[in-house]
Order: sequence, then C-alpha cells, then structure tokens
Amino acid sequence: MPERIYLDWNATTPLRPEARAAMTAAMDIAGNPSSVHAEGRQARRLMEDAREAAARAVGAAPRNVVFTSGGTEANALALNPGLRAPAGPVGRLLVSAIEHPSVLAGGQFPHDAIRTIPVTPSGVIDLEALHHMLADGPPALVSVMAANNETGALQPISEVADIVHAAGSLLHVDAIQAFGKIPFNIRDLGADLATVSAHKIGGPKGVGALILGAGAERLPPLLRGGGQERGRRAGTENVMGITGFGAALTTATTALEADRPRLERLRDRLETGLRSAGDAQVFAGDVPRLPNTTLFTACGMKAETAVIGFDLEGISVSSGSACSSGKVQASHVLRAMGVGSSAAQGAVRLSLGWSTQEADIDCAIEAWRKLSRTLIKRSDETVLERF
Amino acid sequence: MPERIYLDWNATTPLRPEARAAMTAAMDIAGNPSSVHAEGRQARRLMEDAREAAARAVGAAPRNVVFTSGGTEANALALNPGLRAPAGPVGRLLVSAIEHPSVLAGGQFPHDAIRTIPVTPSGVIDLEALHHMLADGPPALVSVMAANNETGALQPISEVADIVHAAGSLLHVDAIQAFGKIPFNIRDLGADLATVSAHKIGGPKGVGALILGAGAERLPPLLRGGGQERGRRAGTENVMGITGFGAALTTATTALEADRPRLERLRDRLETGLRSAGDAQVFAGDVPRLPNTTLFTACGMKAETAVIGFDLEGISVSSGSACSSGKVQASHVLRAMGVGSSAAQGAVRLSLGWSTQEADIDCAIEAWRKLSRTLIKRSDETVLERF
Repeated sequence: MPERIYLDWNATTPLRPEARAAMTAAMDIAGNPSSVHAEGRQARRLMEDAREAAARAVGAAPRNVVFTSGGTEANALALNPGLRAPAGPVGRLLVSAIEHPSVLAGGQFPHDAIRTIPVTPSGVIDLEALHHMLADGPPALVSVMAANNETGALQPISEVADIVHAAGSLLHVDAIQAFGKIPFNIRDLGADLATVSAHKIGGPKGVGALILGAGAERLPPLLRGGGQERGRRAGTENVMGITGFGAALTTATTALEADRPRLERLRDRLETGLRSAGDAQVFAGDVPRLPNTTLFTACGMKAETAVIGFDLEGISVSSGSACSSGKVQASHVLRAMGVGSSAAQGAVRLSLGWSTQEADIDCAIEAWRKLSRTLIKRSDETVLERF
Repeated sequence: MPERIYLDWNATTPLRPEARAAMTAAMDIAGNPSSVHAEGRQARRLMEDAREAAARAVGAAPRNVVFTSGGTEANALALNPGLRAPAGPVGRLLVSAIEHPSVLAGGQFPHDAIRTIPVTPSGVIDLEALHHMLADGPPALVSVMAANNETGALQPISEVADIVHAAGSLLHVDAIQAFGKIPFNIRDLGADLATVSAHKIGGPKGVGALILGAGAERLPPLLRGGGQERGRRAGTENVMGITGFGAALTTATTALEADRPRLERLRDRLETGLRSAGDAQVFAGDVPRLPNTTLFTACGMKAETAVIGFDLEGISVSSGSACSSGKVQASHVLRAMGVGSSAAQGAVRLSLGWSTQEADIDCAIEAWRKLSRTLIKRSDETVLERF
C-alpha cells in the first residue's frame, strides 16, 4: 500500500513520539495512584508530573487541573448549574450556536435553561447579541469555544470574557481545537473554566482535562465515589494516558511558535491550490482562523462522495457535517452561519499537523484537480446561496 | 533495589503482556473511530474486536457493551432513574451497604431516593431484608456487587436476581472485582446491567464497560454530544485502552480455570501462615470468597502502620480502610458487618494475581512474623469486639 496522506488532524492527530515513549515507560508502572506503597507512589508521580506540565501550558495552578476521559466529559463536568457566579448562582447556560455537540447538549443543565447565542455569517460569535442576552436574566454560565472545529474560525474570547464578567457571570471556554495550535492561557483570556483534550495535540484518545480558574474552584463533581482529583472526579486515573498527555502537551507547547507560521504557509498554499484547481470556496475565509484548518465546498458537491474520493486517492479528509452516528446531516455550524443546505452538504475539511509537508499539500491539490471534474456539478440546479 | 512483591492486585493489576502488545500496536493507528476514511476504519475495527471479546466474555450481545472510562463512570451511567423496570419506572435505588463508593454515591439518583440494604456479620447481603424493602415501595433499581473488593466475600447474585425480578424491579451488578477471578455471565446470573473494569484483570487503568441485559437496552446516556457507543456514551473513544482491555479479558477468561484453584491454594497457604505466624484473624473467612483475597487484622494493630511496614519489607499490600483522599477512615464494609472500630482500623488486605508465586506468599508470611511482633498490641486497651 502506498504511503497515505493524513489531512484530518482536527478529528484526531497521530501520536507524538514523545507521548508514545512516555506511555511505553508508564506500562511498567503497576500501581494505583491512590495506593500508599512504592508502586502507588510511582504512579502518582507520573500523574502529578503531567498535571504540572498541563498547568504550565495553560497558565493555571496544578491543583486546578482536573483530568478527565476527554473533552466531552470535561465539557459535561464544566456545564454545571451548581456553579456560583460573582452575581449569584448560575441560573442558565448560554452557548454559541457553533459549539461542539457535547457543549450544545448542555452538560448538567436542564434543557429549558439553555439558550443559543447567534454567530455572524463568518462564523464568529455575535458579541452584541451576547451582551443583550446577559442583560436580560439571572447570572449565566456562558460557553464559547476558542476556535471552531469545522471552520477554524477564532472566537474573540477576551472580548467575550469582558462582557460576561461585566454581567457578573462565568465563562467556560472549550479550547479543544485551539489548544496547541495557537497560544492559550486561561488567565490572560479571563476564562473561568477551560476544556482541553489530549488527542488533538498528539496525545492519546480518551484523555482530557478541565482547567479551573479561581472563580470555579468549587465545581461539584460529575462522577462521584473515590476521592481522586481532589474530589472533583472520582475513578481510578488513566495513568498511562495522562502520562502521554503530559508528554504531548510539553512538546506541542514548545513546537507551537515554529509550527504556527509553517502551517499557515501550507494552509495558504492549499487554499490557493484548491481555488485554482477546481473552484473551491473557503468558509470563514475572511476572519482570523486556526493556522491548520480549511473548510471548503464547490458547486453541487456532495461531501460524502468527496471524502470517499480523497480516501481512494490515499488522502484522509473529513466532511464538515456531523456524521458520527452514521447519519448524514448538514453541519449545525454552517447552518448557524446562514449557509444554505446545498453548500453545507458539500463542505469538506482538510486539517494539517506537525508532520504535514509541502508535498502532501501538492498531492491534495492534485487529487482535488482530478476529483473536482466529477464532484462539481456546474449544471446542477443547486446554487451557493452565500459567497 | 531488590525485587518487590506485589500483593495488591485488587487495587490494580500489572499490565498483562497481551494487553501491552495490543496497545503498542494500537499506538500506530492514528484514526478516530468516527472517521470514515481508512485510518478511521482501522481504529473502529480495533474497538469492535475488543467489543466482541468483551461480549463473549460476559455472555452479552456486542451491541450491549458500552465502553466507559472505568468502573466509576460505568456505575454512574448504570444508576439512572430514567430506567424502566418491568413493573414501571424505577422510583428508587437500593444498594447493599458494602458497595463501592461509586455505587453508594447513587449515580444519577437524588440522595433521598437511595436506601441501603444491610449485610450479615460475614459481609453477605441480607436477602430477607432485600425482599422486604422491595415489597415496600415502587419498582426499584437494585445494585449489588458480585464480590466485595475488601473481604472478597461473594454475593448470592442469582438469588438476588430472583428476588429483584419477582418484584418487577431491575438488577445492576458491579462485577469489577469478581470479573476474571470467578466465572461471570450476565445472562446466567440474571443481571440487567453489569459493570466491569480493565485494570482489575490486567488491562489498562481508565477503561471499563457497562454491559446491558435485554431489560436495560434503552438506558439514557450520562455523557451527551457525539453519537458514539450507539448514542449511549458520547466522546472520542479510548481506542488504545479499549484494545488493551480486549486483549486482557481474552487472556483472563482463558486463564481463569487454571488460575482459580492455584490462587485458592496460595491464598489458603497465606492465611494458614498469617494465623500461625502472628495471630491474624481473617474477615469473612466463613463464607465463599474470591480465590485471591485475604482481609485480616490482629489485636490492636493499626493498618496504616502495617501497610508501611510491609512496604519497607518490599511487599505491597493495602489497608482495608478507604483512604483514597488521604483521610484515614474505618472501612464502611467492616462497619456494615458490625466489626468494631478498633478491629476495623487494623484491617490489612493482601490480594494475589496470576504472577503470584509460592515464594511470594512465604516472604509475606515471614514479613508478617517479623512485623507482628511490633504491630500487635497485646496489652492494648482495645479489644476485638467480634470473632
């Protein structure tokens, strides 16, 4: 089989060599971190080293890093109506319309306490709408992602934090897609809670963390039982995975400065190529985005067919639509941006990572040149409603 | 450092070589199981192979194996007031007094809907009390462990199932400690839901599963968002860990028949030695127990001192008391058995596993002979209230 080209880094990244090495070493540590004997203490040491690395990477105190089984659990833990905002108990949850499904689901908030904040046609949160929504009701927990996973559009978190805090409310930031790709510091941004995930930065799948700011230290647990994670998350810890997370985030944070401009150049090369080779139109192209993400479509294209076409060419890409359950639906992100259903159904995402090379980009452009001949339906009745 | 002797297998077991090999291979699989491209399909295949192995091992359909981040999450998922029993919605939760803290916490049930079923002085559920409690109120979800993690006492699950089902109620069995040590089949036992965990059978920490019987297939999720695990548990799956779990349980199930009598012989040798070397008294010694578990005490002994003493002798054991938060408390299990606080505070657990050898047992007995001289306070005011 010829070597494949992996351009689906936003879905999950290959394991970083440093994470692999750390996890291989951790396989020898038999102990449970809650045990007091030598084996237990060894396991605890591994975990606490990872916690310190995570804390350093996001600008938090180690005691405020709560390891979880991934971003979804961290989001469910964060979205807790038991939190207390400066202006009083959080009586409701406001989420942007382009959040990940695990945030849209609302965590532990009852369905009728959740409201959606609209976004602009470029896929950026509508700050004025947020302002009005906060003014109109009790203190809220607001959840806004640092960068959208589909379009890569960066959200103005500092401005959001100012608006939220002026209203005496609390801010949760899902930083899963941004973390490791752009600088992220919970203190500088003013987030009260932030979610990060290991498998988006070269760590293993099934590990994440919720980072608590000073205003959220008294977060009630979602999983109760043993006293692990200072009583905030019961259950024997995934020591091997947490160790891999620690190694990955140390490497990712160090590499960020060099990776970012390199990825931006590759991404720009890709988008120029896609446009010239086959009439591609890039979503959220007019706003600041992650350095590695391109979501595009072309007239009359069906994303599922395109993903299979790229796959047969040896290139892994993803459709912008949510289909984890096997059901094809138009992306809620594009719908929130006001993109029409025919354009939304053609959205294909290419996302790059640290091992992506110029040759990979050129292959992807070449594949698109070939595929676009059959994928683009110029005579099709469908029109691109927006662009 | 001389080789250590690990006798704390009930806390967590060393990784089985088969699990290590499977996880090392899985490190090369970059894909997300929800992705449709080749890398995604490879990841999904690994996970589905593990699901089939788990299903075979417990007598369930593969579609009814829900992978989780461990036993605690599986228990929290299982204990859901949204379940429907044959006689109607489950209006309350009945748990035995010796359950794991993650079951005692009650999962998603409100605190005032939880009642505790008493146990006998030997640490076995009081079936008559269960019968009366079920008769007196609406349909219930009943949660009883297959074997106690501290004493090893086996619970009469078949009889419990008969009583629960005769009352039109549902049964959850926490099989974490029993699974891999004694035969376990969810269908034969009549459990409606069962929890198993990877790190108790030689898989990695941070992986578990909830097994659903036919009566609980419509369990609502605890973590919502993506459509993973048939919508029953959102979040990108811990592919590497699940793969290791699959390998461990295949080996554990195969080895069970030979391991069980071997461990029983070693355990009996240990208990005879502990008694003759230093007056040890074994808890739940008069009822059927796991083949690998010994919980014992001696007059006036402090468990924390004993655990440190064994550790300094190169032997890892644990105290029977729950101290995962660093706080020393008398075991709720021994308290439920009516054991007095002085005896309970001296409870030390030795638990054996597949690599335990006769020489390890003899070393432990020898260490106890030495330690017991200082640990046992014969002149102490404290008395063993029960024995």
